[in-house]
Amino acid sequence: MQWAATALALLLTLASVADATDTSADVPDARESDPAKLGWMRGAPPPPDRIIRFHDGSYWRFPAMRWSVSNFRRLMPTVNVSRGLGTAAPLPRAPRDDIDTLRFMPLGSATAMTWRESLDANYVDGIVVLHRGRIVYERYFGVLKEDGQHGAMSVTKSFVGTLGAMLVVSGTLDADKRVDEYVPELAASAFGDATVRQLLDMTTAIRFREDYADPDAEIWAHAKAGNPLPKPQGYAGPHGYFEFLQTVRKEGEHGRAFGYKTANTDALGWVIARATGHSVAELLSELIWSKLGAEQDAYFSVDAIGTPFAGGGLSAGLRDMARLGEMIRNGGLLNGHRIVPQAVVDDIRRGGDPGLFAKAGYALLSGWSYRNMWWVTHNEHGAFAARGVHGQTIYIDPAAEMVIARFASHPSAANTAIDPTSLPAFHALAMHLMGALEKQ
Amino acid sequence: MQWAATALALLLTLASVADATDTSADVPDARESDPAKLGWMRGAPPPPDRIIRFHDGSYWRFPAMRWSVSNFRRLMPTVNVSRGLGTAAPLPRAPRDDIDTLRFMPLGSATAMTWRESLDANYVDGIVVLHRGRIVYERYFGVLKEDGQHGAMSVTKSFVGTLGAMLVVSGTLDADKRVDEYVPELAASAFGDATVRQLLDMTTAIRFREDYADPDAEIWAHAKAGNPLPKPQGYAGPHGYFEFLQTVRKEGEHGRAFGYKTANTDALGWVIARATGHSVAELLSELIWSKLGAEQDAYFSVDAIGTPFAGGGLSAGLRDMARLGEMIRNGGLLNGHRIVPQAVVDDIRRGGDPGLFAKAGYALLSGWSYRNMWWVTHNEHGAFAARGVHGQTIYIDPAAEMVIARFASHPSAANTAIDPTSLPAFHALAMHLMGALEKQ
Repeated sequence: MQWAATALALLLTLASVADATDTSADVPDARESDPAKLGWMRGAPPPPDRIIRFHDGSYWRFPAMRWSVSNFRRLMPTVNVSRGLGTAAPLPRAPRDDIDTLRFMPLGSATAMTWRESLDANYVDGIVVLHRGRIVYERYFGVLKEDGQHGAMSVTKSFVGTLGAMLVVSGTLDADKRVDEYVPELAASAFGDATVRQLLDMTTAIRFREDYADPDAEIWAHAKAGNPLPKPQGYAGPHGYFEFLQTVRKEGEHGRAFGYKTANTDALGWVIARATGHSVAELLSELIWSKLGAEQDAYFSVDAIGTPFAGGGLSAGLRDMARLGEMIRNGGLLNGHRIVPQAVVDDIRRGGDPGLFAKAGYALLSGWSYRNMWWVTHNEHGAFAARGVHGQTIYIDPAAEMVIARFASHPSAANTAIDPTSLPAFHALAMHLMGALEKQ
Repeated sequence: MQWAATALALLLTLASVADATDTSADVPDARESDPAKLGWMRGAPPPPDRIIRFHDGSYWRFPAMRWSVSNFRRLMPTVNVSRGLGTAAPLPRAPRDDIDTLRFMPLGSATAMTWRESLDANYVDGIVVLHRGRIVYERYFGVLKEDGQHGAMSVTKSFVGTLGAMLVVSGTLDADKRVDEYVPELAASAFGDATVRQLLDMTTAIRFREDYADPDAEIWAHAKAGNPLPKPQGYAGPHGYFEFLQTVRKEGEHGRAFGYKTANTDALGWVIARATGHSVAELLSELIWSKLGAEQDAYFSVDAIGTPFAGGGLSAGLRDMARLGEMIRNGGLLNGHRIVPQAVVDDIRRGGDPGLFAKAGYALLSGWSYRNMWWVTHNEHGAFAARGVHGQTIYIDPAAEMVIARFASHPSAANTAIDPTSLPAFHALAMHLMGALEKQ
């Protein structure tokens, strides 16, 4: 039972387009579920009904989950992503007091909502808006503070995808090579005859169901394998992410459609580790975090043999997420220093094949594509984003010179529940910062 | 079996005057056991004989332990000790090239040893020497880097003792009050009628045997209780440090003798948490780490309900350990800012009762005392130290205006195996920096 609960909890940390959480009317709202007010893990010892544990799965039940997303390291082993020892890069401030009252129309709604209302609607834990590199808006809620780290969930994928694209540009990885040329252990798996490019764009054809209602879905096996706790007696499945990936079976032909499946990022993480001799945690520190002027170290959760969870295991500070977004917005430059090659950013911004993306059937994301593990809107502003379950995002609007970094703990994992009060808010703010609303 | 192995491994992380490790002639020397050369946890996946795990106890077997001490967070859940978000305080450098060849006589030896030789003899992972606040010497070995964190072991106790003494000076704690006035749950335990002062100086009379050869020794119960993994089926003992402390029985009369027992620090941690509403991890950040100009966050290991291991669970960067030592050497001031009250530092430096200390029978520490969880030499320089198993120390020599911070992974836990090639080396370096050797 405990094992099943933990596996369920773990799999819910994975990126998913499905929604395993009951978001019916009796779910507490943002203020009722405020994790600071609920007093999770306060007291010595905390009251029994305020203790959150990893191994019994309690950490991922709403509303306890609202504490857990800011405290993954207190629940499981992790590996550091060092910022280095230098001084943090300044993030100048130019606060605007006209944002909270900004109004927008949620998707599918006939009633306008204000920006401030959208924060509660999305159970936001923290949000920073940069305009032309300056902080125009910054808020924290619940237990997240400016010096805390919050789970980035599948925003992690975009960082791993960026590392992969950097290694392609530098020639360390050949995007056209088969995965099994880098990781022979994957030869017999679905990934063996996929190319690195197909991993980067998630156009592999793999059997990896993220349907929580199906006990045979592969997402369960992934979660059990990645669980860092000792395996229960009688467990006969794979141990760790690497063993799990070898069990993934092909379903169809690679390159025919976009299919958002976490296992692709874990496979990419393995390819990267094998090609460079460094884990994605080490590389993220070496190539990006230590050069970003980050103000905090970040960290990855790890499996029982220390493998970072490339598909969704990163936790980081909110302003550092904004710094990374700003660096990407600037074509890979930050404060005059090149961190990511311009070619990588250009490749992300051009996006993937919208035709392949359309086959995945995202009703709210019409015309979008996916490239190097970033979501590309192809809207008139050329906006693109890193996106994770429960509301995590870095949203970059080049036309508006705007970057939004957001951490949240929405009771729904799926962005289908979150996008309607988020995407139009982001676009309205972009227009507002451009002065376009005023001019209309 | 796994449970027993993990319990054994955990208890070995505790401060101890005993030695559970076989240090006979066939133990690999410092270079043979270099954890970088041995390649622990390198590769994707690492070779099976290079994988280090927490739950099977492999992490604490020598020489794997030499990797683990720099990687506790990769093995178990931890809680952050934030440095804040400010700029690190500068540590000016004035390197000296005449230290490695410095000669001293190890205790009980007729053959001189050089300072450089002493580093290998003590399996040093990193060492920094400050003289008048400037780095005159700094070396790293194995897998510890300047941006890494290493287990401080029982050096942790001195930090918790300093926090306790600060709370006494501020009036939050009354040193003369009974422990059960702060923590009623401890009333029936050995700690109930002890005073806070007796905790701070470890003059309680508690039954807490750290004899690893005895399966009934209380140290086993402590380790099992603190283990953050789910308890095995049939486990009937205490869960977590707080429950364990309630089981500790009295043995003799408080105040009659010094007895170095880890449980005292965990009890002090509970008193502090109850009196302030903050864990020792939170307080260490708030009162010291965030004011120290630390260049890295530190962290504590935690039990299954998130309690920081006050008796030995801190990991931190080496230069930050030196910063803390320098602040204490300066009477609680660093760069002109007061961090610790002068009265606390004065109280530590005056030391405890050498008569009570003598009863503990430390052959190598004649004339020493213990105060606020610091070891006080009462030598002609007024040196005092924080000390942990396997060679961890912060050694402060006020007369020589010298602070040494050292991380090590000696195969022996006990300082009895380490002091003979350490204490005379520290004193010789102090004399050297004072110019006293030259003048003799």
